[in-house]
Amino acid sequence: MIIMGIDPGIGITGYSFLEYKNDKYYLITSGSIQTDKKAHHPKRLAELKNDIDFLLDKYSPDCASVEQLFFFKNQKTIIPVAQARGVILLSLEEHKIPMFEYTPLVVKQTITGHGRAQKSDVKLMIKNYIELDKNITLDDTIDSVALAVCHGQNSRFKEEIQ
Amino acid sequence: MIIMGIDPGIGITGYSFLEYKNDKYYLITSGSIQTDKKAHHPKRLAELKNDIDFLLDKYSPDCASVEQLFFFKNQKTIIPVAQARGVILLSLEEHKIPMFEYTPLVVKQTITGHGRAQKSDVKLMIKNYIELDKNITLDDTIDSVALAVCHGQNSRFKEEIQ
Repeated sequence: MIIMGIDPGIGITGYSFLEYKNDKYYLITSGSIQTDKKAHHPKRLAELKNDIDFLLDKYSPDCASVEQLFFFKNQKTIIPVAQARGVILLSLEEHKIPMFEYTPLVVKQTITGHGRAQKSDVKLMIKNYIELDKNITLDDTIDSVALAVCHGQNSRFKEEIQ
Repeated sequence: MIIMGIDPGIGITGYSFLEYKNDKYYLITSGSIQTDKKAHHPKRLAELKNDIDFLLDKYSPDCASVEQLFFFKNQKTIIPVAQARGVILLSLEEHKIPMFEYTPLVVKQTITGHGRAQKSDVKLMIKNYIELDKNITLDDTIDSVALAVCHGQNSRFKEEIQ
């Protein structure tokens, strides 16, 4: 099964594609979609949509794990981030890819065992699940890997993983 | 010039198309896009996108006036509303329709002369600008007419209206 992890953003969207097989995770590819900061929001959203469409066509994931947003976190950026997330959900729906949502708390709990973990703890512990290229340093990309692993771990005893 | 007014929402999106000619406004059509409350968000966003695409293809507006969101207003709904707004902005961009944003404050100031006006005042005063069908009673639709008139009034001395 191929799981796509997505950490949505208008400036930077982190993404990764993982293969989950025999209870192990393998990284297929990962990266980030960055849009032109100087461009108008509608144009940036169209750039993001094009890139997500391209990735979904290329890697055909079986499902996607997308970060769930909360208004009380990052109040200044919540609106543009949610607008970007809307466009990502649309692209997933158009490609008929089931979407699962996880809060940062659940991701941290799943990867590190406790919800108050720091970003650096998640970065460290994610290596227990998957071998990451040392060139992957961007937080948004690592977060997307954590989201994908989180979905694999949370659904491993459920019907959706056969 | 045809102005589209849009009051974005995930449950209800109000829309209207106005012709602005010789300093007068004429209502071409107006209504609301309502999505299935029981459906998953990605599906509702895809429904909304299809309907906006259909309206833009049918009425070919020259520009769109879309409500600007603020995080401190309606904190509970801000994320789904912003996700819907992202999909609307994407559709406008794909149709190459210039998008203008107005806060509720500016809309109220423009229509009624003061920013603390109630919804009922806007409803009453909008009739000074445009003849509305008495069947238009939905707040979201009236708000979309107010947004379209607001754009016409705010740009009437500017270059974009010739």
